[in-house]
Amino acid sequence: MKKQKIKIGLFGFGVVGRGLYELLGRVPEANAEIAIVCVRNVERHRTTTPELQFTADPNEVLDAPGIDLIVELIDDAEAAYTIVTGALRRRLPVVTGNKKMLAAHLPELIELQKEMDTALLYDASACGSIPVIRNLEEYYDNDLQISVKGILNGSSNFILSKIFNDHMSHADALKLARELGFLESDPTLDLDGWDSLYKLVILTLHAFGVYINPERIFTYGITHMTDADIRFALEKGRRYKLIGHAEKTPDGRLILAVIPQLISRNKFIYSCEDEFNGVVIKGLFYGKQFLVGRGAGGHPTSSAVLSDISAIRYDYFYRYKRMHSAELPEFSNDISFRVYVRYNTDDDLDLLRFEEIYERYYSDDNRYVVGKVNLRRLHAIREVMAERKIFIAAYPDD
Amino acid sequence: MKKQKIKIGLFGFGVVGRGLYELLGRVPEANAEIAIVCVRNVERHRTTTPELQFTADPNEVLDAPGIDLIVELIDDAEAAYTIVTGALRRRLPVVTGNKKMLAAHLPELIELQKEMDTALLYDASACGSIPVIRNLEEYYDNDLQISVKGILNGSSNFILSKIFNDHMSHADALKLARELGFLESDPTLDLDGWDSLYKLVILTLHAFGVYINPERIFTYGITHMTDADIRFALEKGRRYKLIGHAEKTPDGRLILAVIPQLISRNKFIYSCEDEFNGVVIKGLFYGKQFLVGRGAGGHPTSSAVLSDISAIRYDYFYRYKRMHSAELPEFSNDISFRVYVRYNTDDDLDLLRFEEIYERYYSDDNRYVVGKVNLRRLHAIREVMAERKIFIAAYPDD
Repeated sequence: MKKQKIKIGLFGFGVVGRGLYELLGRVPEANAEIAIVCVRNVERHRTTTPELQFTADPNEVLDAPGIDLIVELIDDAEAAYTIVTGALRRRLPVVTGNKKMLAAHLPELIELQKEMDTALLYDASACGSIPVIRNLEEYYDNDLQISVKGILNGSSNFILSKIFNDHMSHADALKLARELGFLESDPTLDLDGWDSLYKLVILTLHAFGVYINPERIFTYGITHMTDADIRFALEKGRRYKLIGHAEKTPDGRLILAVIPQLISRNKFIYSCEDEFNGVVIKGLFYGKQFLVGRGAGGHPTSSAVLSDISAIRYDYFYRYKRMHSAELPEFSNDISFRVYVRYNTDDDLDLLRFEEIYERYYSDDNRYVVGKVNLRRLHAIREVMAERKIFIAAYPDD
Repeated sequence: MKKQKIKIGLFGFGVVGRGLYELLGRVPEANAEIAIVCVRNVERHRTTTPELQFTADPNEVLDAPGIDLIVELIDDAEAAYTIVTGALRRRLPVVTGNKKMLAAHLPELIELQKEMDTALLYDASACGSIPVIRNLEEYYDNDLQISVKGILNGSSNFILSKIFNDHMSHADALKLARELGFLESDPTLDLDGWDSLYKLVILTLHAFGVYINPERIFTYGITHMTDADIRFALEKGRRYKLIGHAEKTPDGRLILAVIPQLISRNKFIYSCEDEFNGVVIKGLFYGKQFLVGRGAGGHPTSSAVLSDISAIRYDYFYRYKRMHSAELPEFSNDISFRVYVRYNTDDDLDLLRFEEIYERYYSDDNRYVVGKVNLRRLHAIREVMAERKIFIAAYPDD
């Protein structure tokens, strides 16, 4: 444990970076300070925060004398990768929130941590303020893990909440989310499920000990949801939630997907609203756990970053204990499940290769089917489904 | 970190002890085994579990050669205290779930840990499977803590759920809880709020860094709740939940209470049902967090115990960081708040010394008031209120 003040080399000074700066000022017990910040536009930040030292040169931060750790909070995944690996190679511990970078490079980053004997912490990368990674690592690691699933993206949940609680149209809800700054500059990251996917890959590694390349996982969002789909959910007394889902089958296979789901009222996740994230973790012995917290925003995320900074002071590092389990589950897309599909032409229906059809409805302006499809098939036709603006949601029996 | 198999000296072989034994058999990665068990009735256990070594002599466990740690899972708080201090003095780490013992002896047990440089972990003592203590210690310790509150007792929550969801009468719900083994042998522990109180004392120490003697905290349960009270809640679209509440006021005082509360539908806790516990933790930066999990039962609790055992393998100990904060909040009962009170005679009403009365109702068989009372006054008259079978619930504006 380091007793003196921790000196932070910071990359990025957006809402989370500024939130961290504010938080450090409010909590003297944290005993940490920002020594130097790398930003693209040095002049602008020098004007608003003249008391901080800024640079545009990454190496000036990485090689700054007396720096204890690096906090990486920039958007660009490839630049983040260069920074994080550069820091670890200098044996500088790193705290990052960059889920896209982590989802792409985790195996190699785990190796690098080991090689350099230097910690990389990233609880802020999945579900903002909810300590879900830390709990999977430290608390739920001695049980037989069954599943991890939940609302991993705050922006899409905000939009769905506005639709189902405040009866806004899909278009108006999207507009409001944009106005409140809840959407990424590229909104498809949130709405098409990619942001949830990156988080799911990270959580899966900590929950089940295996890394699954994001490209292997079926990912479908709420972009093509129409008023007819919303009406269907309301008629059934359910709500759509965009769910990241990782589950071990009884025969030891690991099923992963990001897909809207028709959630019934008796589920924990039904009441997880607005920009909140909610994760349900199931183990054989501890049963069902539900963790809820703000999934985005400068203050909640910076609080998670500070918890990781503080953990590094106490020499904490992820042990990835699950990766050393005797039996690791094997990834599989070979599972059939009940879905609701709203389609446009009979061709669309053929495309999905339904194994069973339980309900079928068509009128002049609306066509849907409730039936059973295979996840492997969905994964193969994802892009065509999106082009044809088909909407699909998992529709469990309960 | 200890690499070889951990040898456990176990006290108590009830549902949690047996759950732990089962769990260790299912999770070889835990790399731990029960070496010897102290029980009152050796013969009975020898018959059902002949493969384990039993003794009735506590010292035979504490002094057993090669024991790495003690797990204490007995009911009797005083006997537990003797075991836990005996183990710590022998520099044997201890995992315990005994909330009553902890609530009474925490300051001294913290000193003893320090003196002996030996860990005492007890996450199973508060909210069963929910890692609330660990998260307060390790994750929420760098923010400005505002409040910790929630449903800390599974049995009373089960009864309230049956009343408000399944429309059972109070008496029938109580009977069902008893049949299912959800009530302690002395049900007043659950129903009058004492069990919640002990947990609240433990959580408060970890969340705010101060130990408050249980006797100083107003504690009132659901024993005197009648059908008229239930009707009142339903008319207002609310549900009673028995809430343990710790909150820092803006002027830095710490307010604590265990009291039924009329919860409105928009609150997380409204949907926390059956034997589940739910805790809402608020910090200035991370905002609101909600943790839900099973609060009782052999399997969930033994899973929490095993997490603590595993943490001891990695030399984990509570640092009680909040106790070293620059400014500790001062305990106070001097706060007035809105309550619903169902009473019997005008004398009852005088007793409570209402500061304001907002609503007053009386008929031949039912009398209630909605008004403002002071917590200090309630604390002073608690026993008289119970004798007179008065029912009280906090009734916040929202």
